[in-house]
Amino acid sequence: MSDATTPRTDGHAARRRGTRAQVIEAAVRLVAERGFSATSVDDIALAAGVAKGSVYYNFTSKSEILEAALAEGSERLQTTINEARGDLRGREALSAVVGALLSSMQANPDFAKLMAAEVFRVEREWQETIGALRAVTIATFADVVGEISPGEDASLVGAATFGAVLVAGLEWLLFQPDRSVEDVRASVLRLTAGL
Amino acid sequence: MSDATTPRTDGHAARRRGTRAQVIEAAVRLVAERGFSATSVDDIALAAGVAKGSVYYNFTSKSEILEAALAEGSERLQTTINEARGDLRGREALSAVVGALLSSMQANPDFAKLMAAEVFRVEREWQETIGALRAVTIATFADVVGEISPGEDASLVGAATFGAVLVAGLEWLLFQPDRSVEDVRASVLRLTAGL
Repeated sequence: MSDATTPRTDGHAARRRGTRAQVIEAAVRLVAERGFSATSVDDIALAAGVAKGSVYYNFTSKSEILEAALAEGSERLQTTINEARGDLRGREALSAVVGALLSSMQANPDFAKLMAAEVFRVEREWQETIGALRAVTIATFADVVGEISPGEDASLVGAATFGAVLVAGLEWLLFQPDRSVEDVRASVLRLTAGL
Repeated sequence: MSDATTPRTDGHAARRRGTRAQVIEAAVRLVAERGFSATSVDDIALAAGVAKGSVYYNFTSKSEILEAALAEGSERLQTTINEARGDLRGREALSAVVGALLSSMQANPDFAKLMAAEVFRVEREWQETIGALRAVTIATFADVVGEISPGEDASLVGAATFGAVLVAGLEWLLFQPDRSVEDVRASVLRLTAGL
């Protein structure tokens, strides 16, 4: 973000952070529904309830909005997962991380849909950001799987575990929303009980 | 497809089927890479190596191409899965279905990427077709899980199993292509060994 050329009050800064967050939230929602190319900056401004000029005050392009959305979402997800894992190891860590990922998906289903739609697209401008999200998430599960079954080559098992949480979570949020997060966590842990 | 108004020879029919298949294949590849809205009918015609008029001879719109691609891909996948399952039950059925799904993904990685990107988008024109693909795939896994652990509410476990195969499969095809299909199948079955 470029420096403002005029002095700004705290009120300005707060509004600017607010606008930025509103734009990101609207972009995630629209792109999750329609896809990136079908979403225009006009659509995003309208959905965010801000002027198009405010969007361009915060971002240089539509790609930069998505890049920021994925970067911030990834960072938040990573923090949530790390905090949930804490000092836990093995099976307890798996249970905590699965629960944290599902709760994050419930708190922001649009980001979850976006993640599923983009996580294996390798030709996007934000490829590095989504690649980091994919790598970190899979690596966390691979690490925990390695704690449960030491010595195992866990990278593909880690990917499979991430996929199990992602797809069970979306199935839940979109088609069985009356189930509790505990139900879904139990289903994933049921699948992985033999690790 | 509408009836031709002039009599056609077998050669014509063969060419027309060929064109249709080429168009579908190109559309799946481009949409898997760039997304639906970023792909034009011109792009598809160019990538398929056919005239734009030939595209519109076979399909009325870009949506209809995607609809046909998803319908044909789903039908093929369903046939493959059913044949692999055959009379097998329980753990043997799981192993066969996981292997068949991974082999299908290997044979058509573009379709696999498209499936991952679209399977939880619920606002598309081809929503019913992708919904049927999702439902049938998850139901097959839920059914097999139910055979392994009778009495269990298996719908979410089925979704988790489908997700495990889908994400491990894409991780393999995109980032660890030197691994064998047997390696990947073993990783997924390792995850699900406790069912």
